[in-house]
Amino acid sequence: MTLSAAATTPPSRSSPARDKIMATAERLYAEHGFANVSVRKIGEAAGQRNKSAVQYHFTSRDELIQAILARHAAAIEKHRIAMVAALDPPGRVTRREWIACVIAPTIEHHIELGTPSWYGRFLAQTVVEPSLREYAIQAHLNTPSFRRLEEIRLLQGRYHDPELSERHGAMIRQLIVHMSAELEADLAHGRVDPAAAERSWRRLGENLITAVCGLSSALVGDR
Amino acid sequence: MTLSAAATTPPSRSSPARDKIMATAERLYAEHGFANVSVRKIGEAAGQRNKSAVQYHFTSRDELIQAILARHAAAIEKHRIAMVAALDPPGRVTRREWIACVIAPTIEHHIELGTPSWYGRFLAQTVVEPSLREYAIQAHLNTPSFRRLEEIRLLQGRYHDPELSERHGAMIRQLIVHMSAELEADLAHGRVDPAAAERSWRRLGENLITAVCGLSSALVGDR
Repeated sequence: MTLSAAATTPPSRSSPARDKIMATAERLYAEHGFANVSVRKIGEAAGQRNKSAVQYHFTSRDELIQAILARHAAAIEKHRIAMVAALDPPGRVTRREWIACVIAPTIEHHIELGTPSWYGRFLAQTVVEPSLREYAIQAHLNTPSFRRLEEIRLLQGRYHDPELSERHGAMIRQLIVHMSAELEADLAHGRVDPAAAERSWRRLGENLITAVCGLSSALVGDR
Repeated sequence: MTLSAAATTPPSRSSPARDKIMATAERLYAEHGFANVSVRKIGEAAGQRNKSAVQYHFTSRDELIQAILARHAAAIEKHRIAMVAALDPPGRVTRREWIACVIAPTIEHHIELGTPSWYGRFLAQTVVEPSLREYAIQAHLNTPSFRRLEEIRLLQGRYHDPELSERHGAMIRQLIVHMSAELEADLAHGRVDPAAAERSWRRLGENLITAVCGLSSALVGDR
C-alpha cells in the first residue's frame, strides 16, 4: 500500500450488502474487540446467507477495516476542509484557531453519528493493531486539509525541531483518538446521559482544544 | 472482579513454564495484535508440548493477560512508591514534581526492560479492548502510590471539578500509555536507534512531563 493511497481512495463503492457488513463489523468490533469477532460472525450478524459474503465484498479482514476507516476519514475531511477554508488570512490565525481545525472536525463527525456510535472505539483499536496502525493514521492525516494546516503553520514561521514536532503531533493524535473512544464508551454504557450527547461531545472538544493549547505552548513554545 | 483485586493480587506465583508462557504471549501479542494470536500458538511458541499447557497455567486468555499486566504494574509501583516517599513535605511539592511521580516510574520500568521490549504495545492493546480495559486501568492506578499522590494533591488544596478531574487524569493516562507504545515500536523497528534507547526513553519522559504540566495548567489551572 502506498501511503498516499489512503487519502485518494474514494470513500468506496457502495451497495446495501456492503454497507450492512461495514456497519455490523464496526459495531461488533467496538463492542467485543477485534480478537473476539470472526469474519464469519460478521457475515451472520449482517444477515448474509452466503458464508463467503464478507470475503466477496472485502478480500480480507484488513480490507474491510480499511474501508470503514476510509469512509469516516472522508466524512471528517469534509468538515475540516470547510473549517480551514474559513480561517482568517494565514498570518493572523491564532494557535487556538489552528488547533480547533485539528480537533473540532472529529467532534462534529461524532455528533453526526448520533448515539450509540461505534467509530470511536473501533478507531482506537485500529491504531494499536500492528497491521492496521499505519493505514489508520495516514487515512486521517494524509489529507488536503492537513497539508493546508501545515502550510499555514510554516507561513507563520512556527518552525519546530522535526523530532519534537512529530512527538507533539503524536500526542495530539493520541488524545483525540482515545479521549473520543472513552466518551463514546461512556455514552454507550449510560455513564454519560445519551440525551446530553451533543453537549458532552462539544465539552470534550473544548476540553481537548484547551488542553492541547497548553500542551503545545509548553512543549514547542508556539505562540 | 472487584476493582481493588487488581492492586492486591500478588505479582503471581512463578514457575519456569508459566513465566515462559507469559513472556511469549506478551511478545506475540505486541508484534501481531490480540486478534492474530491464538492461545494454541502461544503454547507452541513457548515450547509447551502439552496442548493444554496455557489453559493449565491460566484458565483463560483474559487471565493470562491480566497476570502479565499485574506483574508489570507491581514493578512500576515499586518505582513510584520510592519516588513518592522521597518527595518534599507535601505542602511544598511543585506541580512538576507531582507529575514526575506519575510519569517517571513507567519510563524507568521501560528502561529496565531493555530493548526490544513488548510491554508498551501489549498494554496499549489492553486499554482499548472492552473486556480488559477496566482491569488494565485499575491494575496501574488503584495502588498505594496513587492514593498517596491523591492525598498530597488534596493537602495542597488543589480541588478540581470531579468530571474535569477525571478527564484530566484520563488524558495523562492516554498520553503515557500510547506514547510509550509508540517509542517502543520505533525502537523495535529501528526507527529509533536501539543503542540510544535509554536516552530516548528519558527524553520521552521529559517531553511528557513538560507537555502534561502545560496541559494541566491550561485545563485545571493547577499551579
